Amino acid sequence: MTTPDAPALPLRPELADEVPYGAPQLDVPVRLNVNENPYPPSDEVVATVAERVAQAAHTLNRYPDRDFADLRADLADYLAVESGVRLDPTQVWAANGSNEIMLHLLQAFGGPGRTAVSFAPTYSMYPEYARDTHTRWVTGRRAEDFTIDPDAAVALIEAEQPSVVLLASPNNPTGTALDPGTIEAVLDAATRVPAVVVVDEAYAEFRREGTPSALALLDRYPHLAVTRTMSKAFAAAGLRLGYLAASSALVDALRVVRLPYHLSAVTQAAARAALEHRESLLAQVADLRAGRDELVAWLRQQHVGGRPLQVAESDANFVLFGVLDDRHAVWQGLLDRGVLIRETGPDGWLRVSVGTPGETQAFKDALTAVIGEKEQ
Amino acid sequence: MTTPDAPALPLRPELADEVPYGAPQLDVPVRLNVNENPYPPSDEVVATVAERVAQAAHTLNRYPDRDFADLRADLADYLAVESGVRLDPTQVWAANGSNEIMLHLLQAFGGPGRTAVSFAPTYSMYPEYARDTHTRWVTGRRAEDFTIDPDAAVALIEAEQPSVVLLASPNNPTGTALDPGTIEAVLDAATRVPAVVVVDEAYAEFRREGTPSALALLDRYPHLAVTRTMSKAFAAAGLRLGYLAASSALVDALRVVRLPYHLSAVTQAAARAALEHRESLLAQVADLRAGRDELVAWLRQQHVGGRPLQVAESDANFVLFGVLDDRHAVWQGLLDRGVLIRETGPDGWLRVSVGTPGETQAFKDALTAVIGEKEQ
Repeated sequence: MTTPDAPALPLRPELADEVPYGAPQLDVPVRLNVNENPYPPSDEVVATVAERVAQAAHTLNRYPDRDFADLRADLADYLAVESGVRLDPTQVWAANGSNEIMLHLLQAFGGPGRTAVSFAPTYSMYPEYARDTHTRWVTGRRAEDFTIDPDAAVALIEAEQPSVVLLASPNNPTGTALDPGTIEAVLDAATRVPAVVVVDEAYAEFRREGTPSALALLDRYPHLAVTRTMSKAFAAAGLRLGYLAASSALVDALRVVRLPYHLSAVTQAAARAALEHRESLLAQVADLRAGRDELVAWLRQQHVGGRPLQVAESDANFVLFGVLDDRHAVWQGLLDRGVLIRETGPDGWLRVSVGTPGETQAFKDALTAVIGEKEQ
Repeated sequence: MTTPDAPALPLRPELADEVPYGAPQLDVPVRLNVNENPYPPSDEVVATVAERVAQAAHTLNRYPDRDFADLRADLADYLAVESGVRLDPTQVWAANGSNEIMLHLLQAFGGPGRTAVSFAPTYSMYPEYARDTHTRWVTGRRAEDFTIDPDAAVALIEAEQPSVVLLASPNNPTGTALDPGTIEAVLDAATRVPAVVVVDEAYAEFRREGTPSALALLDRYPHLAVTRTMSKAFAAAGLRLGYLAASSALVDALRVVRLPYHLSAVTQAAARAALEHRESLLAQVADLRAGRDELVAWLRQQHVGGRPLQVAESDANFVLFGVLDDRHAVWQGLLDRGVLIRETGPDGWLRVSVGTPGETQAFKDALTAVIGEKEQ
């Protein structure tokens, strides 16, 4: 087993051929590949972050508040404003990105001998969370329009008896928000197993008018967990602050498996600073939503091979479009023109994040050129 | 199973009676319970942290550098200065606290069907890392003086065939640094299994003159991992920056199991800022080492029940002392006088962190009073 370059390390066999997860981090003019918010924090936000971090740094020799009570209270306040659902701070949890939240959930409720269920196409990290926690991973299929058929979902849950069900809404990479009736059908089926139902609302702030949040279901379903993140709406992907809303009992279970002091004093201070500026940050979200709707409409007017592009309904800050005979060639053609989008989702589809008006225009121009070339 | 307060959640049965890990976070005048560095960051350190975080915040809407190349280079530079061992940045890894480092190690090399071995008394988090990764946990015993007998260690490794061996040096809660010969004997036995050997050097900067670091063994042992932290020597427990030095092949394995973007842009910036001030921060470490030696000498002069106190040799920023007939009463007596230490370690022993000269004096005064009461 030993070669000069590869010493005999007892790596787990299931990891032997794995590569680290992640989209290419390429330095190109227009980056529309990882659903980042295109607007950098304002000078006001930067100043508040620096000020609050400096305050925290004065006692940096001490361990942080292990239960980050102040941040949880601020997040609960924010959710009340954003969705109208008032939660107690003990119903809120946070971690270094929503992927650490998912890890906590699967450590507490998944694990060896247990099953997690989701519905593909969906977020490509989910199977990695399952792998890293030794949870069996089962996927049902979404419908042609990327919604979930409630009867099929209930049947799958009854057949597989999972301890965790993961529903992304709005879904990544399709942008699809789930109907509340579908989520309730899943929750009712999950009660009978029992399973924890995780509704991943990473993109919730981008949902269209009239699309509800699953937060409204929390008072009736103690086994529901709604995850959120500051990466997208708060333009803070670099901060790594994911959070969760659930029953206090569910949160208490996560407190057992979390590594102590997992959330640094610096992270807590910076997150609270960004939350202070929620009004101006969410005003940008409104702009991005309008940009998203306009981009969807524009894409639907484009044709490839004589057929109009198909464009998924989107409640997120990205749009999935297809069907392309050679999506890789289109992706590469865009990259050659300085526009990086993501080659993900079902065969023949591509995903583009909503950028600034200028970035979206650059994407449109590049796509028009690439499609034009292919039409010749 | 359902009660009004506890909904039916599919919590893993082994977690059902567990409570969240952590020392009490009490607000008392003198906190010598969690081995924090007693010196808050200077105004110069705070200013650099704020400046670097502000710079990072200008692009906080973007995901951080997933492989934190600059921070790894800075950490490699620091280790070269601190220990004389020059490593390539690809040999360095970092995470949110050394406990996330340990999680990565056990995710890659431990897990279901595998065994991790350590030697008690040792750091009380280790069995939690094992539990959270479904790794079987086996402990041998340290000798009376808290060292590890190399023959006994080799015999245990040969009998248990672990995939991971955890050696804390200096050990927590005893302060004991391991002899390099002992570490080499363990490494040689581990080669034959094979197992990864983790030497946890969280307190390495406090080791006494002449005590070597296991970093010097890295060029000969590709299955050795040496973990460090900025919590103690860099007075940055609130920052949550643990790191590791090992072969590039070992680090590559950790890159597969890490959650993508686990280290925020803010954490990367703040850690690099603190590293800029390594000279002044390490000057305080020299003061703490002197304070530790003085505290050990003083404790050895104290008597309880007509017997001198036993005090463990310490290469760390804390001291373990005993043997007390009722350690809880002594701990409580100290707390009643505003001095919080830690009730941990073998029966009858207590652990006290090295504080500022004033804090150490407050501890001495309180201990003298408590022991005096008990002697009456």
